[in-house]
Amino acid sequence: MTKIILNGANGAMGKVVSELIALDSTVEIVAGVDLNTDVNRDFPVFDDIRKIDIEVDAVIDFASVKAVDNLLDFIEEKKIPAVICTTGLSEKQIERINELSKATAILRSANMSLGINTLSKVLAQIAPTLRAAGFDIEIVEAHHRRKLDAPSGTAILLADAVNENMDEKLSYTYDRSTRHEPRRADEIGLSAVRGGTIVGDHDVIFAGEDEVITFSHRAYSRKIFANGAISAAKFLQGKTTGLYDMSDVI
Amino acid sequence: MTKIILNGANGAMGKVVSELIALDSTVEIVAGVDLNTDVNRDFPVFDDIRKIDIEVDAVIDFASVKAVDNLLDFIEEKKIPAVICTTGLSEKQIERINELSKATAILRSANMSLGINTLSKVLAQIAPTLRAAGFDIEIVEAHHRRKLDAPSGTAILLADAVNENMDEKLSYTYDRSTRHEPRRADEIGLSAVRGGTIVGDHDVIFAGEDEVITFSHRAYSRKIFANGAISAAKFLQGKTTGLYDMSDVI
Amino acid sequence: MTKIILNGANGAMGKVVSELIALDSTVEIVAGVDLNTDVNRDFPVFDDIRKIDIEVDAVIDFASVKAVDNLLDFIEEKKIPAVICTTGLSEKQIERINELSKATAILRSANMSLGINTLSKVLAQIAPTLRAAGFDIEIVEAHHRRKLDAPSGTAILLADAVNENMDEKLSYTYDRSTRHEPRRADEIGLSAVRGGTIVGDHDVIFAGEDEVITFSHRAYSRKIFANGAISAAKFLQGKTTGLYDMSDVI
Amino acid sequence: MTKIILNGANGAMGKVVSELIALDSTVEIVAGVDLNTDVNRDFPVFDDIRKIDIEVDAVIDFASVKAVDNLLDFIEEKKIPAVICTTGLSEKQIERINELSKATAILRSANMSLGINTLSKVLAQIAPTLRAAGFDIEIVEAHHRRKLDAPSGTAILLADAVNENMDEKLSYTYDRSTRHEPRRADEIGLSAVRGGTIVGDHDVIFAGEDEVITFSHRAYSRKIFANGAISAAKFLQGKTTGLYDMSDVI
Repeated sequence: MTKIILNGANGAMGKVVSELIALDSTVEIVAGVDLNTDVNRDFPVFDDIRKIDIEVDAVIDFASVKAVDNLLDFIEEKKIPAVICTTGLSEKQIERINELSKATAILRSANMSLGINTLSKVLAQIAPTLRAAGFDIEIVEAHHRRKLDAPSGTAILLADAVNENMDEKLSYTYDRSTRHEPRRADEIGLSAVRGGTIVGDHDVIFAGEDEVITFSHRAYSRKIFANGAISAAKFLQGKTTGLYDMSDVI
Repeated sequence: MTKIILNGANGAMGKVVSELIALDSTVEIVAGVDLNTDVNRDFPVFDDIRKIDIEVDAVIDFASVKAVDNLLDFIEEKKIPAVICTTGLSEKQIERINELSKATAILRSANMSLGINTLSKVLAQIAPTLRAAGFDIEIVEAHHRRKLDAPSGTAILLADAVNENMDEKLSYTYDRSTRHEPRRADEIGLSAVRGGTIVGDHDVIFAGEDEVITFSHRAYSRKIFANGAISAAKFLQGKTTGLYDMSDVI
Repeated sequence: MTKIILNGANGAMGKVVSELIALDSTVEIVAGVDLNTDVNRDFPVFDDIRKIDIEVDAVIDFASVKAVDNLLDFIEEKKIPAVICTTGLSEKQIERINELSKATAILRSANMSLGINTLSKVLAQIAPTLRAAGFDIEIVEAHHRRKLDAPSGTAILLADAVNENMDEKLSYTYDRSTRHEPRRADEIGLSAVRGGTIVGDHDVIFAGEDEVITFSHRAYSRKIFANGAISAAKFLQGKTTGLYDMSDVI
Repeated sequence: MTKIILNGANGAMGKVVSELIALDSTVEIVAGVDLNTDVNRDFPVFDDIRKIDIEVDAVIDFASVKAVDNLLDFIEEKKIPAVICTTGLSEKQIERINELSKATAILRSANMSLGINTLSKVLAQIAPTLRAAGFDIEIVEAHHRRKLDAPSGTAILLADAVNENMDEKLSYTYDRSTRHEPRRADEIGLSAVRGGTIVGDHDVIFAGEDEVITFSHRAYSRKIFANGAISAAKFLQGKTTGLYDMSDVI
């Protein structure tokens, strides 16, 4: 039985993770963390992860950027493997994660789904060829009306994958309404649509001479992210150090 | 035979209009206007429309914002019906067109296609109901890499159609990357994709609770805009005053 | 409190309806019907609706074609308002429903969502104009891998809406692989995609000369159908006779 | 200067090929073949390729299934390299091509575009992984109203690519309207949309648990196929035997 701390237990993703773990006889949540401790859960909920003193096998994190600092303090002290799914981290936080991974096993990914991680591999592989053949690359993502950041962490992940094997990296453009000029050849445009309860759509568009190739991913529920995080937590069992991402799990 | 002056004769749209008129035995281009007068055409090309002193029935305009002032001088003096298709006009230019339409027949539209004008009518009609039912409205457009303005005039036309019958008008949002907050209820997001040779795609998205309705238009060639402009020029024959748009033609 | 019998209580849609009713203090399920009576529910489940002898206000039906005959016997005897959502009914069953509606209030619809019913109205209105302008009309739907019928009842509903105001009705084509000829002008092609857990996507495509207009609806969860059915059951309260559809409720 | 015979010179693709070759100073059409010899062209047009007795470097074929037999007689006799783009060939014709390629260089492909051939490589590579993860695979294609065969040769090409590295090959399903059962696990559904002047759209859909990945290709003009064929003809120069496809050219 893999014992888990769930960071961000009462958020939208936290609820889905705990529902799925409740159906899985090989994993158990032994404690949750959330600023909001009023919700009644099947496990104790703390307002600060650093107050937890229970033996656990891994942390699954779907919290907010602010909560990540406490999480990193905790990982540093306890040397517990962690699956970090919060997006929009600062460069300082990312650096600290890289540093901590020398002493404990950490998996970090902006998107835990099989689909996005498969697309990401494909993009890294074919983008340089299509770019050399004159294709322009653009990304459009759509999410629900409550999402705070734009573009999404997953859109950035996909743009980074496009750039991964590119000799000259493309820059990211978020707004074209304030300039009056042709498209720049060395950019990726990223557009963010917001509305309703859209779980997460991502289109990566390669537009060439009279032909367009589009790689699309559509999420129909948050279960795909929760399942990915649970698989990642299991994957980290027995690993003592190292920085991983979902491509290691798939 | 309807005799036409083609404003913007050597631009991409000008070329398509003249190709289609060459196949139509009821219309004839008697003069063109373009800053670039070096291209050899079947009709004389002037660098300033005000230099033309030929009897004509209508002007078709697919030029640039800068060339429109000369065009309006010409219309004012000659009282010739005009089809104005240039987008991105200033408020001052639009006002002057409204004023001129009291003395001559003018048709102005950001998009001459049957498809966009049909969508536009549908949107005006259903947007208030869907909005009242909690749907958020977003527009994504895609055009070729050489397009200068963003979002497209057609995207604005569609957003205006959404607002047409709305008691409280929605504002237009072009960039969400610089704010960190939930979607505002009273906005329409407009995103602009640029790449390759895309002629013009427009998606109007209504995103509600667990359902999304999308109205899409895709242009496969510029012929649909040229055909619309030629029909509009024929429509203006015999009209002496008034401001029209494509919904009058269809 | 509106008292409901839920026909098809243990199917996928039955479960969603009961979950939503549990959150609604103005509606209550007093009995369920399902061939499978082994599942433990908060209300009694009968294997044949005709065995139920409880005072109720309405029946909500999301069962199978086979279970509909018993339902119609029950409605005939008890004169209880009914919301019939099962698709794929035989012509005989549809006729009987029409007949029964002279003695009790019945609402029947192949799709209970606001989105599909809005699209349906729009299609009825604009299809004749677009058809006259030379546009061809095609429908593509996608559903989960367990769906038995193809094309979906909703695809047929949309095709019927396209035909509603058409002077010459278009026929429906389900398979082009066995013929070797150009598209017939007087047909609507209906294509069915099946895979994964897709809740229900529908695209109505108008393909013309160098332009394509697409009206798309995407369902992200079954809640939209369940909510529609519950609204419909409330709508029927106080109605004694008549045949209704979702356009009456919206 | 590469000297070309154009088989199917007066068809839609033949016209595009000759327009592009007219702009290319390294290639020249020295003869055309078409049942319709009435059209005035810049080169002589024969009604039977076997009547041609001019020294040439390659044949480009965009004709009809019926015209391919004469073409193969000609290749057999003259040992001239050939780019065969006609789709819907019989198994017998394909066998004969394979046989002929032992004596002369032949490139055959159902789609000459860079985009489709790139997608095809990606699909062959990732389909087995996604299939093992429980994704169902479906293909939807759309073409203009005059296309005779369905599904398109390109849709079959993409389905074959999906199957290429699959241990257990998936079968192809063209019509689900006549059966009443869940989707079979071992099939690829292929749907054909027909309408207007659509040049060629192809969607390859991977539908899994609550997520869908779609690989789309959209052609905006026939130029992309003509350009591919011209590149292929140049590629064959200097090759004496062998069977090639577009992946060798790209």
